[in-house]
Amino acid sequence: MSSHSDAFKEILGDKGVLTPDDGLDSYQIGARGDIGKALCVLRPSSTEEVSQIVAYCFKHNLHIIPQSGNTGLVAGSVPDESGEQVLLSLDRMNNIIEIDPVNPSIHVGAGVRLSAANKALEEHGLMIPIDLGSDPCIGGMASTNTGGSRYLKYRGMREQIMGIKCVLADENGTIIDALTPLHKNNTGLDVKQLFIGSCGMFGIITEVIVRLSPILQQSATALLVPANMEVINPLLLAIEKACGSYLSAFEGMSGNAMRCAFDHCPGLPSPFGQEDIPTYAILLEISRTWKQRESEQSLDEVLENILAELWESDEELLCDALLGAGDKLWVLRHSISEGVQKSGKLYAFDISFKRSDLAKFRARVEEEIAANYTGLRLCDFGHIGDGALHCSLVLDKDDPRNKDASFEAALRETINDIVVKEFGGSYSAEHALGRKVQAAYDRYTSEEIKSLTRAIKTAIAPAGIGVVEV
Amino acid sequence: MSSHSDAFKEILGDKGVLTPDDGLDSYQIGARGDIGKALCVLRPSSTEEVSQIVAYCFKHNLHIIPQSGNTGLVAGSVPDESGEQVLLSLDRMNNIIEIDPVNPSIHVGAGVRLSAANKALEEHGLMIPIDLGSDPCIGGMASTNTGGSRYLKYRGMREQIMGIKCVLADENGTIIDALTPLHKNNTGLDVKQLFIGSCGMFGIITEVIVRLSPILQQSATALLVPANMEVINPLLLAIEKACGSYLSAFEGMSGNAMRCAFDHCPGLPSPFGQEDIPTYAILLEISRTWKQRESEQSLDEVLENILAELWESDEELLCDALLGAGDKLWVLRHSISEGVQKSGKLYAFDISFKRSDLAKFRARVEEEIAANYTGLRLCDFGHIGDGALHCSLVLDKDDPRNKDASFEAALRETINDIVVKEFGGSYSAEHALGRKVQAAYDRYTSEEIKSLTRAIKTAIAPAGIGVVEV
Repeated sequence: MSSHSDAFKEILGDKGVLTPDDGLDSYQIGARGDIGKALCVLRPSSTEEVSQIVAYCFKHNLHIIPQSGNTGLVAGSVPDESGEQVLLSLDRMNNIIEIDPVNPSIHVGAGVRLSAANKALEEHGLMIPIDLGSDPCIGGMASTNTGGSRYLKYRGMREQIMGIKCVLADENGTIIDALTPLHKNNTGLDVKQLFIGSCGMFGIITEVIVRLSPILQQSATALLVPANMEVINPLLLAIEKACGSYLSAFEGMSGNAMRCAFDHCPGLPSPFGQEDIPTYAILLEISRTWKQRESEQSLDEVLENILAELWESDEELLCDALLGAGDKLWVLRHSISEGVQKSGKLYAFDISFKRSDLAKFRARVEEEIAANYTGLRLCDFGHIGDGALHCSLVLDKDDPRNKDASFEAALRETINDIVVKEFGGSYSAEHALGRKVQAAYDRYTSEEIKSLTRAIKTAIAPAGIGVVEV
Repeated sequence: MSSHSDAFKEILGDKGVLTPDDGLDSYQIGARGDIGKALCVLRPSSTEEVSQIVAYCFKHNLHIIPQSGNTGLVAGSVPDESGEQVLLSLDRMNNIIEIDPVNPSIHVGAGVRLSAANKALEEHGLMIPIDLGSDPCIGGMASTNTGGSRYLKYRGMREQIMGIKCVLADENGTIIDALTPLHKNNTGLDVKQLFIGSCGMFGIITEVIVRLSPILQQSATALLVPANMEVINPLLLAIEKACGSYLSAFEGMSGNAMRCAFDHCPGLPSPFGQEDIPTYAILLEISRTWKQRESEQSLDEVLENILAELWESDEELLCDALLGAGDKLWVLRHSISEGVQKSGKLYAFDISFKRSDLAKFRARVEEEIAANYTGLRLCDFGHIGDGALHCSLVLDKDDPRNKDASFEAALRETINDIVVKEFGGSYSAEHALGRKVQAAYDRYTSEEIKSLTRAIKTAIAPAGIGVVEV
């Protein structure tokens, strides 16, 4: 290591290189507790330095793990346990390079946190409209194509990105500059698409230009309790018909998932008061980017009218509806992740399918649990308006199956088989690829797409990089 | 040819193969009159047939030109003049395979016209929201990443596509099935992105799943005459602030461009009545996808209020504003393309830059014309809300420079140099690559991106395909 260390210090200066003596835990432990062991942590401060590191590592056959915010949930940004992988952190590339409010866009280093970008944008009335419970960095969001809760209105990270700069994982650490601040630009292969969502397999994104949206000036929220699971489709269609582009969130929360949050997040305010937690609830949000005009109804009034129409509908859609309490509802929604995590051994599945298949899918999973996995609780929640579900399965802490790796492997295969083979869905909706998803990648990716991916990797980015083996 | 012809008939049957004796003009002449000469026209009816053709052509070193609607403006879908290229038309793959109104999406063959898809979707209250003056096929729209007039609200074709099936331009004509109907799906390289917008260089898109939007139920339109070119930025920002997601079009039309339309499109109704055509005008459209509720202002009233606010603004933004006459305005807008085409020798530039640079760019072009290209008229128009401009330069029909290829080459280089080098813009905003853009591709693409593109092409799609040499 010491010769490598000297070489890295030559490139990055002393403060750009951390070794195990410096304590690397904040870098080598993932957000869900996955523990790796890095040879060292490199903290470049420019694209040129990243390029030099890539070239050096290629020459010396060192494997690089890129990392920005380290908030991912699938072990995509932590090294393995060998102690031989180089962790390349982008945390010093945290400059906001330019904000352009007229051609609304922000140009940032890959290590800028989403919250930091949005804070800087506040005074311009603009934002990056990706809504999450965590606070990742823009580089990681680009390389994993982050989705989130307001996808229905804004789409995901891929759709926000105008340009990137990156370093190819090749012999020279070739710098690719695709930093155009243009909405329309069709001049051949759209190179940035190779790096968005591909989790670093082809190289390291170092700078990003992101298009901006006006901040929300008005919103109204309701908690809906559907009459049963089958009415969720007509309910969503009726709401979309009634309010079109106002719709900014349609989030599903199972009773089990909400109970986890209330049980394990102290002080979490309940929108239900003394009432029972329902079997299923939907957080509905509508919003506008302009201030209410005198001549205009408030969004609360708009939503009240829409809910009244739903109540009057011949179909029995709603069992209950609570208007308002937006803050409480969003805190509940964003607490569920922590709640399920703390309520036992969590087997998390970040999946998607046709949004029309929600009820059928949940029934199928319940059936599978009853038949082969008794004791598991289905604590699902997620972005059901776009078909993405965080299908969380929880086992009691003292269940002996918790420590059985073959139980987990079988469970993962069972659930993912249902998702992919029975429902034509995806085993990874928005958390992208990490070590935890490797087995699923291997199992469900077609031979044609694997071979295509490998051919591209070999041709343009042969260096060892990232956690995923393609 | 006859041995090839027999082989093709073996694969496609008799009616799948057209030879020069059959008359190939509708296939080999492009929308702007570019004339090529094909060895034959092949009309497969399935992805498997396309695959077999690609494999055969690879083996026999025949170059394939894929074509769907043949509505492109840059000679991207017509063969060269050699008579040796195989034109592969997707016009028989014109089946609407499935419409899913609950997970709103449509699955079509690549040869389905945009108008045919939208007609079939009408009864479901849904549409593919790309708005154009022409009527291309979905396959061509995917492979050129079509933009259009309502990009501000809906974005381009890339953002509508959920899945594709395609045939790689390799030895075997490998079929790649990425036909997922999912909103969120992050499972490694997003293979479809390679084929969207890359104009067939890697293969042939044969089927597409497109996400759908609700049709517009209300709209209001105004013609704005800005006080001067400098106020267009604050005007656009004020409108965006006032109406957010309602904004569906902000289209610029120069006086010269409108005059071309009135002079050369008989019967074109004028929104100006007896008044003079202004130096510059903007077509503003706002729209909603729901029916007007009783408690709600009409969009005409909303727009009237917004315009009143603009009039009262301290900045002098408007010189004139005409509310209504939406149909007339859109007919005018969509007639300009024909108008400029007919008004002399047209040098068309499909460019983009930061939308804030419009006034500066136009002034720069006027200056260049005065200095070095007297006689040219700047008849520009376009999607100025997203920074895309159809910078049309027109020369009188009898000007001798019309026939001087070196004049055209120098002009193209001059204008594109201004766009790319002075303004950091794009020489191809939304018409994508074709034979007419090859010189610009060669001149402005960085060595790194050229080399990356070539490496991918060599690795996955070595067959001769498409009109662009990368």
